[in-house]
Amino acid sequence: MTGESARDKAGSAEPSAPGTRRPGGRTARTRAAVRDAVLAGLTEYGYPGLTVEYVAEHSGVHKTTLYRRWKDVEGLVADALDLAGEDSWTPPDTGSLEGDLRALAHEVVTSFTDPAVAASGSAMIAAAFQSERAAEALRAYYAERFTRCEAIVERAVARGELAAPLDAGALVRSVSAPLFFRLFITREPIDRTLADQAVAAALAAARAGVFADGDTVGATPDAAAS
Amino acid sequence: MTGESARDKAGSAEPSAPGTRRPGGRTARTRAAVRDAVLAGLTEYGYPGLTVEYVAEHSGVHKTTLYRRWKDVEGLVADALDLAGEDSWTPPDTGSLEGDLRALAHEVVTSFTDPAVAASGSAMIAAAFQSERAAEALRAYYAERFTRCEAIVERAVARGELAAPLDAGALVRSVSAPLFFRLFITREPIDRTLADQAVAAALAAARAGVFADGDTVGATPDAAAS
Repeated sequence: MTGESARDKAGSAEPSAPGTRRPGGRTARTRAAVRDAVLAGLTEYGYPGLTVEYVAEHSGVHKTTLYRRWKDVEGLVADALDLAGEDSWTPPDTGSLEGDLRALAHEVVTSFTDPAVAASGSAMIAAAFQSERAAEALRAYYAERFTRCEAIVERAVARGELAAPLDAGALVRSVSAPLFFRLFITREPIDRTLADQAVAAALAAARAGVFADGDTVGATPDAAAS
Repeated sequence: MTGESARDKAGSAEPSAPGTRRPGGRTARTRAAVRDAVLAGLTEYGYPGLTVEYVAEHSGVHKTTLYRRWKDVEGLVADALDLAGEDSWTPPDTGSLEGDLRALAHEVVTSFTDPAVAASGSAMIAAAFQSERAAEALRAYYAERFTRCEAIVERAVARGELAAPLDAGALVRSVSAPLFFRLFITREPIDRTLADQAVAAALAAARAGVFADGDTVGATPDAAAS
């Protein structure tokens, strides 16, 4: 839903698009084709309008197969999100904490100001309001995404830019939060200036020790217990 | 959608509930009854399942009247949000910036951990994904809400806690953002500890001058131009 993974999802007309973790095999191709059809349907009609028939028609996969493997629309949407989480995306590595966070924030802006990518990302977030299984899949997707992003904080600690232990998950989420908040809650435009402000705020908070009571990065058992 | 206004919306069985700005009059009572029915319908079925028939049945207002005054489901949802924005809610005034922001953040946590309030707030946010008019109404609702919240920053500047000029809107939004981000995007639980962390981050950023380039509070024409 951010950067390349979302772009892969929305842009790949080919079922076996580059960047798919399991590029070979008929099963992987089928799954990717179904994922593309699900995203197209969500973008066009939203969750309430998505049907197994639509997915069959747009993926070329027989309805019987869809029902057998994915069971229903909820299963189809959840698997599209699972597949999005299986890409090879890694967080930016620019050599500095500020550079990494800035690149990360700019990726969000770039993704969500590209109508095609924004539509599929937004459709997934919307589906979570209507399906508990989609919400669960979205939760898993972002949990995994932000776990990857913790590498940014680990490198910053290793470089001596931040003192450990600290709550790396909260720090990386604090960069994205003001952007998603405006996109999907207050419905305001976002841009790079706002992204930079979010980064500056996250850095100021991190340097002031706001995320210092965490236990995710650099915590020894003793430090975590204190 | 935060604190008392949401509570009024969700909790008022009486059409002329206290806190409604225009308590008297048949028109105001009708509008509030319709609003309550819209929220009940959104909570029960979501935007895709809401019908004018449902609202007629649950508000006691004739379908012909609903079509004449609100035109369609989009009009009904947009007006429910407009009405939510016409309440008498004011931001907390505890005597300190930290106290005010903390009370504000705790209001979000309290609202969205109360299932009845959370359901109607969440239904409005969800509706905005499916209706451009609902999105527009949500945008207006939050714009107005956060304009009221700027009083917190104005008082802090008057007390000398913060230096003007600064972007008051960005500062108050930065307190809510991490909470709404977890509620509706990453689908993670929120609590008072997280709220306090959001406040501490916002304060650290404000004190570090992150919101200093704004032009909303305390800006003289010269300062705003610089």
